[in-house]
Amino acid sequence: MTETDLGMLPAYALAALLRKGDITALEATKAAIARAEAANPTLNAVVSLETDEALAAAEKADQARRSPHFQGGPLFGVPLAHKDMFNRTGRIASWGAKIRATAPASQDATVIARLRDAGAVQFASLNMAEFAFGITGHNYHIGHCRNPHDPARITGGSSSGSAAAVAAGIVPFALGSDTGGSIRVPASCCGIAGIRPTWGLISRSGAMPLAPSLDTIGPLARDVADLALVLSVLAGADPADATAHAPAADYRAAVAETPEGLRIGVDRTLWESIDPEIARLLDQALSVLLDAGAVEVSVTIPDLLELDRYAQLLQFGEASAFHAKWMRDRPEDYSDQVRARLQDGYAVSAVDYIQGLRARPLILNDWLTGPFDRADVLFLPSLGRGIPTLAETDVGGGEAMTKTIASLLRFTRPLSYLGLPCMALPTGKDANGMPNGFQLLGKPYAETTLLRLGGAYQARVGVPAPRLTGPLK
Amino acid sequence: MTETDLGMLPAYALAALLRKGDITALEATKAAIARAEAANPTLNAVVSLETDEALAAAEKADQARRSPHFQGGPLFGVPLAHKDMFNRTGRIASWGAKIRATAPASQDATVIARLRDAGAVQFASLNMAEFAFGITGHNYHIGHCRNPHDPARITGGSSSGSAAAVAAGIVPFALGSDTGGSIRVPASCCGIAGIRPTWGLISRSGAMPLAPSLDTIGPLARDVADLALVLSVLAGADPADATAHAPAADYRAAVAETPEGLRIGVDRTLWESIDPEIARLLDQALSVLLDAGAVEVSVTIPDLLELDRYAQLLQFGEASAFHAKWMRDRPEDYSDQVRARLQDGYAVSAVDYIQGLRARPLILNDWLTGPFDRADVLFLPSLGRGIPTLAETDVGGGEAMTKTIASLLRFTRPLSYLGLPCMALPTGKDANGMPNGFQLLGKPYAETTLLRLGGAYQARVGVPAPRLTGPLK
Repeated sequence: MTETDLGMLPAYALAALLRKGDITALEATKAAIARAEAANPTLNAVVSLETDEALAAAEKADQARRSPHFQGGPLFGVPLAHKDMFNRTGRIASWGAKIRATAPASQDATVIARLRDAGAVQFASLNMAEFAFGITGHNYHIGHCRNPHDPARITGGSSSGSAAAVAAGIVPFALGSDTGGSIRVPASCCGIAGIRPTWGLISRSGAMPLAPSLDTIGPLARDVADLALVLSVLAGADPADATAHAPAADYRAAVAETPEGLRIGVDRTLWESIDPEIARLLDQALSVLLDAGAVEVSVTIPDLLELDRYAQLLQFGEASAFHAKWMRDRPEDYSDQVRARLQDGYAVSAVDYIQGLRARPLILNDWLTGPFDRADVLFLPSLGRGIPTLAETDVGGGEAMTKTIASLLRFTRPLSYLGLPCMALPTGKDANGMPNGFQLLGKPYAETTLLRLGGAYQARVGVPAPRLTGPLK
Repeated sequence: MTETDLGMLPAYALAALLRKGDITALEATKAAIARAEAANPTLNAVVSLETDEALAAAEKADQARRSPHFQGGPLFGVPLAHKDMFNRTGRIASWGAKIRATAPASQDATVIARLRDAGAVQFASLNMAEFAFGITGHNYHIGHCRNPHDPARITGGSSSGSAAAVAAGIVPFALGSDTGGSIRVPASCCGIAGIRPTWGLISRSGAMPLAPSLDTIGPLARDVADLALVLSVLAGADPADATAHAPAADYRAAVAETPEGLRIGVDRTLWESIDPEIARLLDQALSVLLDAGAVEVSVTIPDLLELDRYAQLLQFGEASAFHAKWMRDRPEDYSDQVRARLQDGYAVSAVDYIQGLRARPLILNDWLTGPFDRADVLFLPSLGRGIPTLAETDVGGGEAMTKTIASLLRFTRPLSYLGLPCMALPTGKDANGMPNGFQLLGKPYAETTLLRLGGAYQARVGVPAPRLTGPLK
């Protein structure tokens, strides 16, 4: 197989070939590095390549395969790269920022350790918004990340490099994080799938925090079956993160299960405020789910602006607390936008912050006894607008900042507040040839319900092909 | 026995007589009500008597005792009364306030249920500072509580009625709550013992919150053996309070164990800033512990003002969040001091609040690797000053408020921040004939260590006799 052929494969299929020995980990890793080197001048998705270490790890995997006791894990030999915000022993993650940890990590983040234990080979780290605090994919320190569908347009953020690298076929999936939409927005901007798991399903131990009461880690992937595979590897209790204590479910089996009879709640009044062309794409996507046997029910979605206000109280308060020392000592080392947003966080009062925490179970209850009483999942837009250009959204910390950011996360950040699992799936293309997306919001720990719908949707629309991208001419 | 004789007995001894049938629960309850009626015109410790219900419950207990299957609990038939802040089915607690819950509680607070399951008969509810947010014992809604040792002087707060009722012999022990000193300060003002347990040892489910990250519930008692008895009844996990998950220990056995060899850490520099007469009382108390076999070690106590600042960030932020709606709708229904303090809480930023939470494990670690590396317990003043009069401390919400409050809780509130168990024990009397107190601070969940020292101390100085108080002439 060529390096391009290998880049078409989802992780579960690549791992199967690797376990059988049809290809070697060394071949797979070399091919992935070649794809990264070809695409990166256009996309700027990769911030660091680890060629020597990765090739050595791949050779070690190939040796292990020749052992008579060989039992490869579900990601055996699969070359991967992730958002550069996870601790890895002996390394300093970039956090997409000028300010970084001062000492190498003494151990791996739990998610990194679990992927490695499953057999994965990491060969690179990926671009991200500075401190994961940006929704567009601009990065003034390490360069903006660019959309494989149109390098003039944004990837979305903050998991910009993860979305671009997956969409471009550099990797089959990549880890991202989602505080206010940072998995779902870039997945939808780049025409791939992504899942924000239930808050607490996946350990955040060793991950850079943005706002711990909202932070989640999850995968972006072209193939929904890879989302399920990653959840099966990462979910489950971790003594190092007291909030991660939920039992895992059989995610991989769910992808093939029929969604027949699942009730999809839709609130058409949301369509009134979105781009009509995107509304049409959403209708098409919904009809695919209904063709697969799901049932549409009409629901009333509670006020998203109220949820967004609460989400902001938590996000801004916690982010500014985490950054307080650096904001005092090194304010000039932040980009204008991140500095301006962190400054806004100082205006949140403890009373408002605590009320933001206290209101959460009450509002969650409103949703569970409201729209979720009639529906198994809720269908919402990811963005409700087309994917803008980098130039249009290059607003820095100025006046247009708040409005620009709000226009990109108005449907994702409110849902983050609920802590519920939320999958983004790609719609068809708009008149600009750009992808878009929709969200399926589930009940607590109902990732399997989302995956049933995702699997059936993908079975009908197909897995998105990698957008192979060479150097800009 | 006369009602006075019965009032001398600690709860464990009274329960033993009741279980044997040497006295009846009806006799015990009538005697307790008679003591309350005699003392209350002077003390204003009792806010509501439940004569009929209590006598009925006592008769039911007496009937149960005549059953062949009788097995009385450790508090069988003991008439009790508590700080009026715990939910009780069908009742509305006063919270010491004009603003109360609007509907009767649908179930008992966990502590109330556990005491009842142990056999206790509740016959009254006790005075407290408005919303437990006051350190003196003044209450402008239901009248100030008065010290049995001198009705012109404060009881301390916020568990004012608990301390006064126990010191006066109305009840052998009473529940209080301690956020910044509300068990320890009144215990020391009234010459009795009290214990603030490790944060998380005793469920707060169904108790009025003041500042949940600091709130604890614990007993005030004349006899240290009763403190142990109450912990044995109340400690242990409660599914209704996720923070209460620690296993209980054998508290009752600890009281009789020798404290031989226990290292008591003392920082003499603290003595420099306290009343010399109180310092002398503290030295006497310490020498009793050393006579009992404990060993004094010199330690350096970290900066208490820093801890107090952090404790205030948590206390004010959380209290003002809890009260935000009422402060908006019914500000005139707060006393001046509580309103002024709640208004101060609005000035706490989310960033400072979150940093107050985040610094806690770090500062706790400083203490555990600092003074607690050399010592098993730390010996500190409770107040460091004599007990003031009600008139001297009647400062309302005015200019003198902050200074007056700080002068009373400068040694207790900083320790609350650590979440460690802390016992207050009475010293001898000062020149005014007033008691005072000291604190023993233990390592996490080391209540048994405190009780070993408390038991040995009491064996040498005796159990304080009730200060029997009749109506003011």
